Amino acid sequence: MTQPITEKAFDPIALVMKLHSRHDAAGIRAFLHDQDEAKVADLLESLPSRQRQYVWELIPSACQAAVLEEMDDGVRNNLLEDLPEASAVLAISAMDDDELVDVLESVSDELADAVLRSLSMDERVAIEQRMAWPEDSAGRYMDTEWIAVRADVTLEVVARYLKRLDELPPYTDGLMVVDRAGYYQGKLSLRRLLTAPDDRLVLDVMQADADKVEVRGLSEDWVDWFENREVESLAVVDADNKLIGRITVGDALDIVREQADHQVMHMAGLDENEDLFAPIIPSARRRMFWLGINLMTAFLASWVIGQFEATLEKVVALAVLMPIVASMGGIAGSQTLTLAIRGLALGQISSANTRWLALKEISIAGINGLVWSVVVGAIAWVWFQESTIALVLGCAMIINHFAAAVAGISVPLVMNRMGIDPALSGSVILTTVTDVVGFMSFLGLATLLLL
Amino acid sequence: MTQPITEKAFDPIALVMKLHSRHDAAGIRAFLHDQDEAKVADLLESLPSRQRQYVWELIPSACQAAVLEEMDDGVRNNLLEDLPEASAVLAISAMDDDELVDVLESVSDELADAVLRSLSMDERVAIEQRMAWPEDSAGRYMDTEWIAVRADVTLEVVARYLKRLDELPPYTDGLMVVDRAGYYQGKLSLRRLLTAPDDRLVLDVMQADADKVEVRGLSEDWVDWFENREVESLAVVDADNKLIGRITVGDALDIVREQADHQVMHMAGLDENEDLFAPIIPSARRRMFWLGINLMTAFLASWVIGQFEATLEKVVALAVLMPIVASMGGIAGSQTLTLAIRGLALGQISSANTRWLALKEISIAGINGLVWSVVVGAIAWVWFQESTIALVLGCAMIINHFAAAVAGISVPLVMNRMGIDPALSGSVILTTVTDVVGFMSFLGLATLLLL
Repeated sequence: MTQPITEKAFDPIALVMKLHSRHDAAGIRAFLHDQDEAKVADLLESLPSRQRQYVWELIPSACQAAVLEEMDDGVRNNLLEDLPEASAVLAISAMDDDELVDVLESVSDELADAVLRSLSMDERVAIEQRMAWPEDSAGRYMDTEWIAVRADVTLEVVARYLKRLDELPPYTDGLMVVDRAGYYQGKLSLRRLLTAPDDRLVLDVMQADADKVEVRGLSEDWVDWFENREVESLAVVDADNKLIGRITVGDALDIVREQADHQVMHMAGLDENEDLFAPIIPSARRRMFWLGINLMTAFLASWVIGQFEATLEKVVALAVLMPIVASMGGIAGSQTLTLAIRGLALGQISSANTRWLALKEISIAGINGLVWSVVVGAIAWVWFQESTIALVLGCAMIINHFAAAVAGISVPLVMNRMGIDPALSGSVILTTVTDVVGFMSFLGLATLLLL
Repeated sequence: MTQPITEKAFDPIALVMKLHSRHDAAGIRAFLHDQDEAKVADLLESLPSRQRQYVWELIPSACQAAVLEEMDDGVRNNLLEDLPEASAVLAISAMDDDELVDVLESVSDELADAVLRSLSMDERVAIEQRMAWPEDSAGRYMDTEWIAVRADVTLEVVARYLKRLDELPPYTDGLMVVDRAGYYQGKLSLRRLLTAPDDRLVLDVMQADADKVEVRGLSEDWVDWFENREVESLAVVDADNKLIGRITVGDALDIVREQADHQVMHMAGLDENEDLFAPIIPSARRRMFWLGINLMTAFLASWVIGQFEATLEKVVALAVLMPIVASMGGIAGSQTLTLAIRGLALGQISSANTRWLALKEISIAGINGLVWSVVVGAIAWVWFQESTIALVLGCAMIINHFAAAVAGISVPLVMNRMGIDPALSGSVILTTVTDVVGFMSFLGLATLLLL
């Protein structure tokens, strides 16, 4: 993920930015002509907004929808907001249904309405049906590009039927077996179809117990299946077991990639779709909120320090050493927090093992708190030639390590139970705890022992 | 990724821990019998080490290798280290080649030697060849389960040949077309094979320009193809274009999942394979190092504060307010750092757009620095009734926001160019900068203006 940028002979970003600075539209068009949609989307994601819009206008309009589909959500929205409504509508309405729903939910209401108005009656109904499924459910990701066969025909009939088709959809690892009324019966794997004798019936060769997903099933429940079972597609059925769609390993790849961004970005208070090249003002506004939250916790820490002004006035060395206690607690706590958030995300934490886990983290805090408090105390002793300060510093560090471990485990568990994303605000709460406990124990002990 | 734990009727972790506490081996055996390997691996990952070892012994030995293959690297190593050598060797040596290499590289040298000695000559040669490929290259991930055909036969001949096989390997979306000497010529997609007329030649139907990967090609270069091109497998060829293996969308899923862990864990100074239920002592030892590094930076910050002891002695309010400057700079900087690290990982940052990006981040720092310094200054003014302190605090915050933006962009870029993972130590360096600049600007300005 973080390999050094290799010195490649060819840097498409640099090339396009150079062509843009020369207003060489023909040059950019020629370059775009040789790229697939995904590469063009990657390029647009890596361009500042002025260049991005310029390049976008040069993409043949027949290809714009396909490029939008490959684009990161944040970048896509920024781009669409800058376009004239008519051209945004044109590009959006040509997108695949599953991506179209994503876009409609994130652009302005006016633009979404304009897109819906531009669709045919049938298309609009299909879109509105899809939007009725819960966010992150199979209904939102599914496509409708499956090939269905009946169970009571021979493989030879199936093979003849396929020969009449032009091409099978991507990720077709099997055919859907349905009855006359469209109810799902099983999957006829292509690999079985190709190897089994022609005179066998579909019924005898198909997997009747093939995995399938209920349309409301959330991605957390079925992404695993793609990771563990080497399948390329799963049937999506409604509550009555009627076949209504198909999800693929391509959807799973997209979801895993999105999850990758989720925790990283949320831990820094950023939206997972934050566009690296977003315009300055909206970016500043989005980050301002997070800084404001953190400012409140910083003031809380200051207020705690303020309670000990009299002590600080007498022993100024305390002011010099106090950030060490808070900082070490914050680091130790964020290690525990990160492990716990990942454990929750992977489903590794259950009520049954929480106690063991808490004991483990508290023991680690005890060991590391002890080791480092001895080191820190010794350094402080040498520095300030004052054994009581060293003792206070060491004790405060041990206390704060324990506080960090307890908060690092309990904050994400409690937030998770309350349905709040621990990746987003867990670290703020944790640092508040380690700052407050750190300053309070250090300055409190100092007040008791030094004055 | 961070959905609340839904109140499921059934919690396998709780069940197994309960059965273990009752020493009910038969109960656990019965439970394991109904699970696939991936589910058993998930379970083992969620158990403390004693329970983990107990359950492991109850897995039929014929299944142990398959469970090991599904297991997280860190958990696997901890488990193997605890087993008697003979049973570890037995389980490891039955694993697939690509997973086996992973294990050999991470277990102790003695165990690795014992495994190699237990293999047949042929197997050992295959393993040693694979280990010669660079880490993270296609050679490390590839399998050898492909079906090859010649270009000069008809599709009917191919279909008859397939009927003689029992089953095709998972993720077979196409057959490999090779010449007599084994050189790769192209891919015959199953979807084309099924739809094209039987009398056509493979040569006319195959994709001669199908994507392929050179055996030394690193995953960063080919994982994209699975994400963007809807393929399920790619041919792996040697430098002479001879077909030597196959990588699949399943490999891509594994890699994307690993990358997801990488940045999150490294930003907290943890190994991406850290086992949530690892034994306490080794876990404490691994984290100790990271705390030590952070302690050095904390002492550096303390040293900076120590330079202003005289100032602090006169105006103790400075000690109360100084953590605010450092903390806000750290938060703002980590937002920029997170965005830059992700941008590097996604290949969105090139020398051509770095200047634009730096200007954007510096502008955002200017806006947010200004807004929050006014707020903070006003609060400090009301709190301490002293306008100069408010002014000093505001100015120091603006200075530190700029320092945070510059460090947030330049630290990851420089580390990346030096081949160091910016996710691992970027945040330490960043906090060092924001702490030092924060304390120095605040206390320095105070010394100039207040004394």
